[in-house]
Amino acid sequence: MFELILIPALVSGFALFSTLLFNRYLAKHEPGNERMQELQRHIREGAWTFMFEEARVFIVVTLFIALILWFLFYWEIAVAFLLGAFLSMSAGFIGMHSATFANARVTNAAQKSEHKAFRIAIAGGAIMGLAVAALALSGLTLLVIIFKNAFDPSTLTIESKAIPIVSDILGRKINFIKAALIVSAYSMGASLVALFDRVGGGIYTKAADMAADLVGKAEKHLPEDDPRNPASIADNVGDNVGDVGGLGADLLESFVGSIISVIVIFLYLYVGRSNESIQELLKLLGIPLSISSQQYWTLLVLPFLIISGGIIATLLGIAYMMRSRSKNLQGILMNGTRLSALITMLFALIFTAFSPTNLSLFFCLLVGALAGLVIGYVAEFYTSYKHKPVQKLAEETSAGAAIGVTGGMAIGMLSTFIPGITIAVSILISYWLAGLFGIAYGALGMLSFVAMTVSVDTYGPIADNAGGIAQGAELPKKVRQRTDMLDAIGNTTAAIGKGFAIGSAAFSALALIVAYMWSAAGSAGEVVIPTIELLSSDIRIGGTVIAALFLGAMVPYVFSALLIQAVSDTAKRMVAEIKRQFRRFPDILKGKRKPDYNKCIAITSQSALRKMVLPAFLTIFMPLLVGFLLGKYALAGFLVGALLSCMQLAIFCANTGGALDNAKKYIEEGHYGGKGSEAHVASVIGDTVGDPLKDTVGPSLDILVKLMSVVAILFASLFPELPFFAQIL
Amino acid sequence: MFELILIPALVSGFALFSTLLFNRYLAKHEPGNERMQELQRHIREGAWTFMFEEARVFIVVTLFIALILWFLFYWEIAVAFLLGAFLSMSAGFIGMHSATFANARVTNAAQKSEHKAFRIAIAGGAIMGLAVAALALSGLTLLVIIFKNAFDPSTLTIESKAIPIVSDILGRKINFIKAALIVSAYSMGASLVALFDRVGGGIYTKAADMAADLVGKAEKHLPEDDPRNPASIADNVGDNVGDVGGLGADLLESFVGSIISVIVIFLYLYVGRSNESIQELLKLLGIPLSISSQQYWTLLVLPFLIISGGIIATLLGIAYMMRSRSKNLQGILMNGTRLSALITMLFALIFTAFSPTNLSLFFCLLVGALAGLVIGYVAEFYTSYKHKPVQKLAEETSAGAAIGVTGGMAIGMLSTFIPGITIAVSILISYWLAGLFGIAYGALGMLSFVAMTVSVDTYGPIADNAGGIAQGAELPKKVRQRTDMLDAIGNTTAAIGKGFAIGSAAFSALALIVAYMWSAAGSAGEVVIPTIELLSSDIRIGGTVIAALFLGAMVPYVFSALLIQAVSDTAKRMVAEIKRQFRRFPDILKGKRKPDYNKCIAITSQSALRKMVLPAFLTIFMPLLVGFLLGKYALAGFLVGALLSCMQLAIFCANTGGALDNAKKYIEEGHYGGKGSEAHVASVIGDTVGDPLKDTVGPSLDILVKLMSVVAILFASLFPELPFFAQIL
Repeated sequence: MFELILIPALVSGFALFSTLLFNRYLAKHEPGNERMQELQRHIREGAWTFMFEEARVFIVVTLFIALILWFLFYWEIAVAFLLGAFLSMSAGFIGMHSATFANARVTNAAQKSEHKAFRIAIAGGAIMGLAVAALALSGLTLLVIIFKNAFDPSTLTIESKAIPIVSDILGRKINFIKAALIVSAYSMGASLVALFDRVGGGIYTKAADMAADLVGKAEKHLPEDDPRNPASIADNVGDNVGDVGGLGADLLESFVGSIISVIVIFLYLYVGRSNESIQELLKLLGIPLSISSQQYWTLLVLPFLIISGGIIATLLGIAYMMRSRSKNLQGILMNGTRLSALITMLFALIFTAFSPTNLSLFFCLLVGALAGLVIGYVAEFYTSYKHKPVQKLAEETSAGAAIGVTGGMAIGMLSTFIPGITIAVSILISYWLAGLFGIAYGALGMLSFVAMTVSVDTYGPIADNAGGIAQGAELPKKVRQRTDMLDAIGNTTAAIGKGFAIGSAAFSALALIVAYMWSAAGSAGEVVIPTIELLSSDIRIGGTVIAALFLGAMVPYVFSALLIQAVSDTAKRMVAEIKRQFRRFPDILKGKRKPDYNKCIAITSQSALRKMVLPAFLTIFMPLLVGFLLGKYALAGFLVGALLSCMQLAIFCANTGGALDNAKKYIEEGHYGGKGSEAHVASVIGDTVGDPLKDTVGPSLDILVKLMSVVAILFASLFPELPFFAQIL
Repeated sequence: MFELILIPALVSGFALFSTLLFNRYLAKHEPGNERMQELQRHIREGAWTFMFEEARVFIVVTLFIALILWFLFYWEIAVAFLLGAFLSMSAGFIGMHSATFANARVTNAAQKSEHKAFRIAIAGGAIMGLAVAALALSGLTLLVIIFKNAFDPSTLTIESKAIPIVSDILGRKINFIKAALIVSAYSMGASLVALFDRVGGGIYTKAADMAADLVGKAEKHLPEDDPRNPASIADNVGDNVGDVGGLGADLLESFVGSIISVIVIFLYLYVGRSNESIQELLKLLGIPLSISSQQYWTLLVLPFLIISGGIIATLLGIAYMMRSRSKNLQGILMNGTRLSALITMLFALIFTAFSPTNLSLFFCLLVGALAGLVIGYVAEFYTSYKHKPVQKLAEETSAGAAIGVTGGMAIGMLSTFIPGITIAVSILISYWLAGLFGIAYGALGMLSFVAMTVSVDTYGPIADNAGGIAQGAELPKKVRQRTDMLDAIGNTTAAIGKGFAIGSAAFSALALIVAYMWSAAGSAGEVVIPTIELLSSDIRIGGTVIAALFLGAMVPYVFSALLIQAVSDTAKRMVAEIKRQFRRFPDILKGKRKPDYNKCIAITSQSALRKMVLPAFLTIFMPLLVGFLLGKYALAGFLVGALLSCMQLAIFCANTGGALDNAKKYIEEGHYGGKGSEAHVASVIGDTVGDPLKDTVGPSLDILVKLMSVVAILFASLFPELPFFAQIL
């Protein structure tokens, strides 16, 4: 029933309201002494500077793209796109506010009680997590409500206005489903902002980190976060920009992508229900062939309901975390997450059971969620120093930096084994259960409790920042130890979360590619279960798909190279600025004069924003180029090639970086000579190599394929069937 | 005509005879003084030790596999397999002999004349190059002659004995073409030996190099190749084992793979010529539909003729190199190679023009050869210090080892851009010209002048080894400078050659995958142009291909991880042994006692051989597992996924390593402080990280997919159509 849409509307409204409550909870706590507040203000201002500069770029780019979409399609498509971009941007702002609002309060609370500090950090994280999920859901709900006509089943027939016939650029008539375009445009808006957030934030955070370390630690032997280092604030800003803003936008995008791929595929199933092979699929799913209007709405809204369940489950999980009196803080974090996951699945079971379909889709959700967990745990296993691989890596590192780096790369490569098998098996199972539709539901399952994942992932950088403030404000050592402990207990969940993000990105990208295939096949005027031939029997143009696979597989490497170079270049400019300040004002090093933090922040912001243009352009431009030149089927190959390459490379980068980072930490804890030993020096080199891999390249790769796929969906109806040379010759 | 087969028989016979002439030419020159001869003997013995140990493993493994093939198929298949393995092994032995026979002679000649030393090194390389091409060709020719019945066109009908119906393991009747199996088995034999050579040799060479550097250079500050270092001989042995044996076997395998994929596809085209879509393809190629027996033989032998042309062109090119009096040695090397390539293409044009086909196939050859050159030049551009990227990398390295390594990785990633586009464009063009057959001919074009490529590639390590002997025999500095110069002029061609090897591996793997698809489709009893669906419309099992793509994309990463770990582990054992010798006999370091070279050689050999088992097993086992569990179509997806991932990773590894290596050399030439500076120390770390990537992982990846594909072709007829779960449920 259409009225079911009120449930997600209410739930997302309630979740947004609860973020206000969490904010009030934060405001009730003191941000500490003068110095702490000043540091907090610096970080906040730095973060805002970056966010506003970034927003300026966003606004220009999104308005430009919205105009193009309006021109090519309808005004509704442009509106949906802008809404997606706006909400994604808002989620970033809210998260940035909460994180930079909570950090000093955590530090201050840590002076008295660990428990209290823990809760404040949790509350800060929850604001971001709930905002991400609730904003994404409310936007989609809003679209369905205001554009109800486009989604109305009575208009959804192949001949109806909803699949109007327009002329493409080459003057041929094409078909598409307007509702599918609306949600795709929304997703593209969210993805575009996410890409900018991830890439820009990723470049910012690592360049600042590297520059601060290169001059501060290596040359001047200042400790981490020392206030005499002009880059120290930029470094802390970077943690927020990259880890909070970037990660939130990334998961929001996966989240939206997985929902819209479910919707798009469902729309094509509905429109094409007279087709025999689609009827077979509907039978498999237990969906009646003579689907009534009521049943249509229920099935359309089903993913919204499942997500609503996930949001409620997150609220319950966070309530548990805030109230538990257990001494084992790490246990609280883990149990809260597990609780949410469990409740989410329960809700999903109930909603699916009451829908006009059998439980296949629920089992797909379950398979997806489990696959996400497995990939997450594998990441944790290979990157935590509690386990063998990193311990062995620390030993290797003690024999020299080069062997350490090589060993780290080997770990990263090896860690693709189980995720590869897991993804393959999940695809097989979800396909077996629900055909092409199953993959989309699998992705949805992975992302159904995204609010919780983001909350816990945001908790980490808040605790990390709190430590930075403790150091900067020169508080007693005990405080820093406490914040370090808070940071450490977040590490396991964060490591799992990172793996989870990659796994869900892969699954959700695949769901988007499947949705693209439906759109590509559907826009040819007939709705059938799409098949893309790897090698076509069409003699002369049969090679386009395989050629496109090669092109696609190459793109992630080039994209990564551009990011790494952007980080180095930005770091180089910052190093020059830091050195200039030290030279010009020798008093800075003596602690008698405050360094010019803002200059460093400004340089990093500008450079990061400028450097994100080329990779972003590549991401939007490549699928259009392949689609228009080689045709819509080749584009499917291109996307698959990119996904395959991306997923391996992302896991490799993330886990290589994670392992090298933790090998350093393991050595710092006193193994192989501890801090200052030769092993430690070697491990610092390893960590510096791994840093851009794990914090810039890996996370950005997650978004690359999703954005390319959603661009492909949106423009599917405009791409020619055949490659250009088949049309000319 | 069948009689045309005599041409390749004669040409390969003549080429083998000419290797004897080159050997006599070498023998005419003196190997130098007592000390030089002793060093040469040590290297030779070390190399033989490894080769014989390796051969023991080969013989056991190949006999075991031959028995399985005999059991599953016919005795002819087992014989073909053993022949391929035997000839590939022989090529390795011959190359190893010539390289270790020539090295001291080059050193000795360098005492008097650069030109003479150059010619000896060229002659040594030519023996290997000609042996590789001639042995591979003679084996195939022999197979066609002795198993003429299997290739006879009169027996090649779908109902004939040549496609007998046998029962597969599940008891179902299957079809296959015996002649296709014979050549595939031959190729599998060659590939298997190549894998062992490449992987074993790659582990050996890098482990020895690392261990020698770690203890010798870094701890004891001995110069490179210092005779006091117990690992110095093992290090020189490694150069031969890896660069000569490994590279030769690798190219031999690509070479055989590209020829047999042409043959396999042609056989299926012939057998299926009553099919309409195949007739369309034949028309495109200008091949008459009512193909006579004479025309059949001409077309079957065509690839042999093209290769024969390549061998003659190589002989002419080498004759030019040996006779040119030009002062510009690098010019001689380049011009000789260009001359051979040109003559090869001329021969190909003539042979194709006189065949019952139009010139489409010739243009495919040309496209393939050009693509190989482009990929080669890109590799040279990104890894030579004559160009911007490495110069910039040297500057980055001067800021610290970590930034250098990261910068090297960025170069490696960026260097995939043009090769990716080149491969895609070549696929499009060759497909456009000659459909699926075009890809196979493109690969053949890349490899048609393989004898020249191998000759020049072998020249490099011979000159390198000559330098080692000059150092070890403590000859005047001038001699070492000359051999270094000889080594350096080979670098450009070697860099191009390495890129070329990767490009040709990718193309020849793709040709093998296409041949597999024909075999898979053909073994289902009907011969049609194969199409593999990326997403099948078969609702429940449609996901198998895409799941297999993910599995395939993962395998190269795991394979690489195993190799890196094998290198570290082996190096670790050697380091322990070197340290033991220094501790036990302090006289070694004083130069008063000879170290126990053989102990080091033995340890490396054993460890390298043991460590190559798991990766080799993975390579053979994975395609069988996927084929039997997920079915023959999924296996095509698996191979494509592996190829995509492999090619990117191979280019990345090879060029990252190459760039880091040359950044070090650039610094050693006096930039950024030169030898001993901080920049140099940082660049040594970078080089050590890059070494296993470029010399072990990259080259081994070339073989991975080719071997997996040829295993797939051989077993194609035994794989089920549907995945196991579709059969059970």
